[in-house]
Amino acid sequence: MDLPPGGHRRSLEEAFPRAALSPLPMTNAFYPQRTDAGRRISDAIQAMHDRDHDLRSFAWRLPRVSVIPEDIGPEGPLAGLAFGVKDVIDVAGMPTRAGSLALPDAPKPFDAACVAQLRRAGAFPIGKTVTAEFAFTTPGPTRNPHGREHTPGGSSSGSAAAVAAGIVDMALGTQTGGSIIRPAAFCGVVGFKPTFGRVHRGGMQVLCDSLDTIGWFTRTIAQSRAIAAVLTPSPALAGKGASPRFALLECASLGALSVPAQDALRLCVQHLRDLGAHLCTPALDTEIDQLTALHAIIMRYELSRGLLPILASAQAKVGQAARDAMGQGLAIDHGRYVNAQRQRAEISARWLDRFADVDFIVAPSAPGEAPKGLASTGSSIFNRLWSLLGWPCVHLPTGTGEHGLPVGVQWIGKPDTDATLLHWADLLHRGG
Amino acid sequence: MDLPPGGHRRSLEEAFPRAALSPLPMTNAFYPQRTDAGRRISDAIQAMHDRDHDLRSFAWRLPRVSVIPEDIGPEGPLAGLAFGVKDVIDVAGMPTRAGSLALPDAPKPFDAACVAQLRRAGAFPIGKTVTAEFAFTTPGPTRNPHGREHTPGGSSSGSAAAVAAGIVDMALGTQTGGSIIRPAAFCGVVGFKPTFGRVHRGGMQVLCDSLDTIGWFTRTIAQSRAIAAVLTPSPALAGKGASPRFALLECASLGALSVPAQDALRLCVQHLRDLGAHLCTPALDTEIDQLTALHAIIMRYELSRGLLPILASAQAKVGQAARDAMGQGLAIDHGRYVNAQRQRAEISARWLDRFADVDFIVAPSAPGEAPKGLASTGSSIFNRLWSLLGWPCVHLPTGTGEHGLPVGVQWIGKPDTDATLLHWADLLHRGG
Repeated sequence: MDLPPGGHRRSLEEAFPRAALSPLPMTNAFYPQRTDAGRRISDAIQAMHDRDHDLRSFAWRLPRVSVIPEDIGPEGPLAGLAFGVKDVIDVAGMPTRAGSLALPDAPKPFDAACVAQLRRAGAFPIGKTVTAEFAFTTPGPTRNPHGREHTPGGSSSGSAAAVAAGIVDMALGTQTGGSIIRPAAFCGVVGFKPTFGRVHRGGMQVLCDSLDTIGWFTRTIAQSRAIAAVLTPSPALAGKGASPRFALLECASLGALSVPAQDALRLCVQHLRDLGAHLCTPALDTEIDQLTALHAIIMRYELSRGLLPILASAQAKVGQAARDAMGQGLAIDHGRYVNAQRQRAEISARWLDRFADVDFIVAPSAPGEAPKGLASTGSSIFNRLWSLLGWPCVHLPTGTGEHGLPVGVQWIGKPDTDATLLHWADLLHRGG
Repeated sequence: MDLPPGGHRRSLEEAFPRAALSPLPMTNAFYPQRTDAGRRISDAIQAMHDRDHDLRSFAWRLPRVSVIPEDIGPEGPLAGLAFGVKDVIDVAGMPTRAGSLALPDAPKPFDAACVAQLRRAGAFPIGKTVTAEFAFTTPGPTRNPHGREHTPGGSSSGSAAAVAAGIVDMALGTQTGGSIIRPAAFCGVVGFKPTFGRVHRGGMQVLCDSLDTIGWFTRTIAQSRAIAAVLTPSPALAGKGASPRFALLECASLGALSVPAQDALRLCVQHLRDLGAHLCTPALDTEIDQLTALHAIIMRYELSRGLLPILASAQAKVGQAARDAMGQGLAIDHGRYVNAQRQRAEISARWLDRFADVDFIVAPSAPGEAPKGLASTGSSIFNRLWSLLGWPCVHLPTGTGEHGLPVGVQWIGKPDTDATLLHWADLLHRGG
């Protein structure tokens, strides 16, 4: 592919004033008007009780009559932000059950590290959102706000649905395979998975130690940046040139894309080129299959060791999918696991070289709209490789597909370019 | 340094028959005679109650009259092994308090992943061992079995002391800076820290996500290998040549070694050369200081985020050292942390290249014998760089120093050569 004829292109400088390249100021991106933070949070608690019966996005809710601390002032960058927390991440005073009947319902004594960081910035957790069992594949009861018979995706099902339904403006999720980007795509919200290892996992039920990554759902990119400014605060660095260079993922799986998902991808590329961004197309071929195979080995090995204590004492309470994965994982010997980790490191180094001059990659988030039915959370074929590499990903909604459900695209940055990735998305993305 | 004249050298083949190079069989390395596993465990519980008053190595003990499950047969490779668990790692039915008054004493519902794996192999946890507060620096009450007025080292103080005193034959510990190798050195036991990321941390109180590593203490290298055969079972691979190549750590800090520690190092090198091992001396200079500085940034950044929830709600119950580190850590901004992580990755890659032809490195474990006094756990100057690199380390006791307290040496392998490192140590090390 070449750049289109220059006539109808606008340069990036024309399209966006220089001032927009400066870092996001630490004002409240959610509620720019000064407001009664406590009242906003109380309102969200009421909405959670009034509007979640049908959706079932929350697994545990603060009571309707909850005392909101008075020290939530209008000064914090997230003041007034009521948020949901995927039920694999601790919140003080709430249970953590990970979508499983095997885990106790005793309240946790402390927040997870990321929850404490958000609280410090003025945000307030109002409940625990539904997760697939152990953040794996057996779905919880959550429905898709855009079509109640369709899956919301998973495993961060409740977080994506609660944000899509407007119950909360932000919810925390986690990704091991496709558990943030996929439900964001199916529910039509912005989902962000940071670079692996950069958000502290203290107080999270980690099962896959080398894959599990905490991220978040919001309705706008600006809101996603505001959360990043609290949890992973780095300045955005513009690319080497005046306008960004991006690559389009090319692999055999693209043939399986639905027509609306293909359109979303094509329009995204066209729009970026119209703005003067440079399209590069590095070859991406069989290594994607290899990455997906390595991901399966590593995830199942780690999951099986992580679930061993629960299976050993409460097997009857654990679903079939987790039991099967556990059996598969225990059959993977340590040497094969170590070998997979070493291959992962080698391929990661090669991909860094390959994309040295690229600012971000554009790829599908999912094969299409949310499939009908609640028995499966859908395919993570376009997510697992990035989880394995640990590169930051953002899902950007673009519109709806042939069934009226959301579609969108995924942009992927290189490690530790999180702020830059969100910066470009904020500047260049055109939603539907 | 050159190899000494050939006359008094024995080749490795002469010194050790070929058969010794095969992997360790999965027989019970602790109790090779078939025995009543249940009775052994009951005996250890009695010893823990009878002999720990003065030592104070346990923070929580199973009651004297404990029911030992009947299904602990003599068949498991670790059958009959009663073990201690550092109090930052969960055991079902026991509290996890991490040496802190801030954590609740409610019993944990599940084992940590590594405890479940050991239990499955026939071992049985009998209590929680004392740790410095949050596995950081404020010591617990444990004393050194070799000299009650001397520190046992830390933070895995109780685990090292309980094994040294013979109360248990194995105890789990963790290392973030020097928390396994240092107490092993001060207490005169074998301490092993595996390659980072290879022992599952589910059910561990992780505070420094990219550093915390689970390892173990035993009295013999063969016992350490038996634990590795359960938690990280890989075959040992002999080096490229018939005899191993090793390097001696060379850095300015060696000047601070006590005379007995210098002797231990010198005798170890001489002994290895006598056996025909090849001494290589790659230059190791200012990068060690840089690694130590990077370790300080990364540890304090991660520790501060991990402790934030506890400090936010129970600050008065937290010791001064952790509060100070927290303040220092919160002052490190995210960009500086990310930059330190990136430098760490670059140096790691360089060091892998530099040691490409080396089987293991010999270095001091600590500057000398355990210092007098219980207010400090001693220096981790020779441990932090390996924790940062994530390379496997084993402490090998060699004898006693001028104060009658243990001294020894540390051998360090490259990532994922854990089994090979223990194999060479088992074959070549001469204890004192």
